Amino acid sequence: MSRSHQENLALYAKLAIHGGVGLAKGQELILRSDIQNLPLVRYVVEEAYRSGAKNVQVIFVDEKVGLLRYEFGSDEAIEYAPGWLYNALTEAYNQNAASLAIISDDPNLLKSVSPDKIAKSSKAQGIAALPVSEVISGFKINWSLIGAPSPGWAKLVFPDLPVDEAMDKLWHSILYTSRVLESDPLETWNKHCNTLEAKKDELNKLQITELHFTGPGTDLTVGLANNAVWQGGWGYAKNGVKCGPNIPTEEVFTMPHRSNVNGVVSSTKPLSVRGQLIDKIQMEFESGAVTKASASVGEETLLKLIETDPGARRLGEVALVPDSCLVSQSKTLFFNTLYDENAASHIALGRCYSENMEGFENLSKEKQLEDGANDSLIHVDWMIGSSQIDVAAKTKSQGTISLMKNGEWTLEGH
Amino acid sequence: MSRSHQENLALYAKLAIHGGVGLAKGQELILRSDIQNLPLVRYVVEEAYRSGAKNVQVIFVDEKVGLLRYEFGSDEAIEYAPGWLYNALTEAYNQNAASLAIISDDPNLLKSVSPDKIAKSSKAQGIAALPVSEVISGFKINWSLIGAPSPGWAKLVFPDLPVDEAMDKLWHSILYTSRVLESDPLETWNKHCNTLEAKKDELNKLQITELHFTGPGTDLTVGLANNAVWQGGWGYAKNGVKCGPNIPTEEVFTMPHRSNVNGVVSSTKPLSVRGQLIDKIQMEFESGAVTKASASVGEETLLKLIETDPGARRLGEVALVPDSCLVSQSKTLFFNTLYDENAASHIALGRCYSENMEGFENLSKEKQLEDGANDSLIHVDWMIGSSQIDVAAKTKSQGTISLMKNGEWTLEGH
Repeated sequence: MSRSHQENLALYAKLAIHGGVGLAKGQELILRSDIQNLPLVRYVVEEAYRSGAKNVQVIFVDEKVGLLRYEFGSDEAIEYAPGWLYNALTEAYNQNAASLAIISDDPNLLKSVSPDKIAKSSKAQGIAALPVSEVISGFKINWSLIGAPSPGWAKLVFPDLPVDEAMDKLWHSILYTSRVLESDPLETWNKHCNTLEAKKDELNKLQITELHFTGPGTDLTVGLANNAVWQGGWGYAKNGVKCGPNIPTEEVFTMPHRSNVNGVVSSTKPLSVRGQLIDKIQMEFESGAVTKASASVGEETLLKLIETDPGARRLGEVALVPDSCLVSQSKTLFFNTLYDENAASHIALGRCYSENMEGFENLSKEKQLEDGANDSLIHVDWMIGSSQIDVAAKTKSQGTISLMKNGEWTLEGH
Repeated sequence: MSRSHQENLALYAKLAIHGGVGLAKGQELILRSDIQNLPLVRYVVEEAYRSGAKNVQVIFVDEKVGLLRYEFGSDEAIEYAPGWLYNALTEAYNQNAASLAIISDDPNLLKSVSPDKIAKSSKAQGIAALPVSEVISGFKINWSLIGAPSPGWAKLVFPDLPVDEAMDKLWHSILYTSRVLESDPLETWNKHCNTLEAKKDELNKLQITELHFTGPGTDLTVGLANNAVWQGGWGYAKNGVKCGPNIPTEEVFTMPHRSNVNGVVSSTKPLSVRGQLIDKIQMEFESGAVTKASASVGEETLLKLIETDPGARRLGEVALVPDSCLVSQSKTLFFNTLYDENAASHIALGRCYSENMEGFENLSKEKQLEDGANDSLIHVDWMIGSSQIDVAAKTKSQGTISLMKNGEWTLEGH
């Protein structure tokens, strides 16, 4: 089956609205996108209004404008964040607006900016954005992320191709991994999310208390938080709307215990953080905290990252992704976490998701931490899975069992 | 002298920041623009940061996204306005952010939308935007408007040219009337604003109580508000910053008395309001209020406009512009009020500017109205001047005198 790019964009927009953000009739939508994605933005806006949106507020950003701030902004400008804007978004979400973002960042945009400057700016933005981060990590409203190529990003993924061809090829990878090229994308997506949901139910039944990752450069024990819950596939926001928070998604994920992670771990893919690349991470953990960290590329960026606050050197998420999944099959290294984290098992430094702990909302902040929940301005996923990684689990129901061998599920259910 | 377009854009950005918004060091700037003006936006952002801006928050809009709301939005969507966004802008202005907008609207964008739908939407937006309108009309912060061509606009102004040539020609008209093509644009601009300031001082000394416009289809007496003050050239915002609120500007303007306008008046140029054209307006006023209104084009839009609220059928501004001024000399009909109102004397239906009444802030709302100040959700300027219009004035200092003959100043000072 061959469709025009315009037809694929229209289908992608439908998937984003109905399978991603799950927009409810009469709901307001806040859509964040770089101006480079204008054609897709317009399809999404049309689909949202056709589906009864009360309003679609597009928050356009321009990466060059962001760069100009780093190039010509005063020290004051670097350390300033527009709290009034984050407060406004929070107000909208509190009025039940849904959130959809189209990700297209150039992974290397801030290559020439000093990591110190970026860390200062990111911290200021992170503090100002806290009310928004809490809406998202607390799953108060339905939200979703999708991707779209930009020239800078496409050239990094396909450096040997002219930019137009690189863009076409990255579009293909994005539409393929998002299942938009299927004959009925939404139906295929729904089935896929149901399958992931069955997998996380299976894991929850096992009552896992600890994961053990082993492979080249990795021997990591990740104790799970008290009352940790696995999630995957559909997300159920507190406003009652069911959504798919990431397109694509291939993961099941849960909450590590902030004080119970030990051992060494090596990254299996590079990642882009704050417009800079980091590669070949090695980290050691003791009682939950990073005690040693190095990287072959972007080490200063990595070190600044874990210095953000005390929670930045502890884990907030651990996720399992089989090596045979669709994103991994695409054989594309995306340099973008939305895709790469769905091609490999991963962990995240920083803030946890409240949905990964049963009864989270009813616990005091103190009790949340004591039970293993982690808090931070950051939440940065990085990939530790591959076809060479095994995962074992301590369970309450069956003792110690194998979950993954050579990156594939060993559970009977699947 | 011949400069490249890029050089002109950089100079235009400098003029906008220093001669327009008058950005103070350390001040935040809110820059509103259609995404079509991206190259100019980036020059303005760079100039703002180079001048010590604390932050430049670009609020990008896309006219097609606006159109999609009208095309596919539910009744609920048409009558909804995102109050949270207007509140946020108000918060930023209250924290002393400056405002700059780049105007590029297609004057005919909403041609095929029913005036009733537009009126409903505009009213909802106007109500939600009231806090912002009050910041602007109360001159609480420094603000400015500049223009940039868009394809839809350029094709309307130069319908016989291919779109690229029409864009080039409209760029030329805009840069010419904004004095950017001068050898030292900022210096020329400063002198020009000083000249306008001298003119308004001259008019203030006359202590004018009433204006009388006569010409083809026009015999209109405009009584001025008590303690009316003429303004022109520089604006002095209440945050202490001097700015040029419009680029270009050719007007001196003051406050009519909301209850003391009588006679008939005819428009001398078409205008675009809310994405629709209106032409050949005829209006009759009695005791300040419109009693009859017609138009050869867009009559329904005009009638909806003056039905917005009681203040929408009364005047908030009267301005004098000589026919020999630069914008008029450009012989371009812009279909855009920023330019056309600076090519001809004009009046505005709706909200007044507080700077046009001495002691405005110290008066109760009731006393403001009694003294002649007008309040409304709208402020719509339309052109009533031309080379065929004479203007006389009743003054306290010299009795009845001629101000303009055949559209030109008759005062000795100029």
